Amino acid sequence: MSKRYLVVYDINEKRVSKVHKLLLRFLVWKQNSTFEGFLTNGSLKEMIRRIGKYVKKEDEDGVVIYSLPRDCKIKLEVLGKDKGNIFSNFIE
Amino acid sequence: MSKRYLVVYDINEKRVSKVHKLLLRFLVWKQNSTFEGFLTNGSLKEMIRRIGKYVKKEDEDGVVIYSLPRDCKIKLEVLGKDKGNIFSNFIE
Repeated sequence: MSKRYLVVYDINEKRVSKVHKLLLRFLVWKQNSTFEGFLTNGSLKEMIRRIGKYVKKEDEDGVVIYSLPRDCKIKLEVLGKDKGNIFSNFIE
Repeated sequence: MSKRYLVVYDINEKRVSKVHKLLLRFLVWKQNSTFEGFLTNGSLKEMIRRIGKYVKKEDEDGVVIYSLPRDCKIKLEVLGKDKGNIFSNFIE
């Protein structure tokens, strides 16, 4: 069964487009450095494995993965432009 | 009573530092364009009002505010550098 995830990242310019392309294969692009979507445990592990190849801790790269339980009633407010949101059909 | 919020934004370079400074007054800086923290309804409205002064929809600016219920068991995984996380004491 898949779970809901929100991924935000702060990656050095030299590597950010690779991480962006990688995440596009797993999740939906939401904002500048934010992705959302559903992942099975297997795809989550694979995504983390691949991200790990790019993320350089010493170079201040950071990726945060939020796992949001399905029964969580998340409310969402968008100011300005919304780049499309997979969660919108789950949001109150 | 305050609620938990996660804010991610994608703001034009001309305006991004103003939004960043503004959000620092309400929330904790987590990642590049990500803030977390607790807000009362009053402070949420005030934050949104002030952000609205900067966000220019026609210029592709976007701010997404996730309201995460307190009873929501959010799991968090950080790859690389963690810039400090107010949620860590609420995360499993």
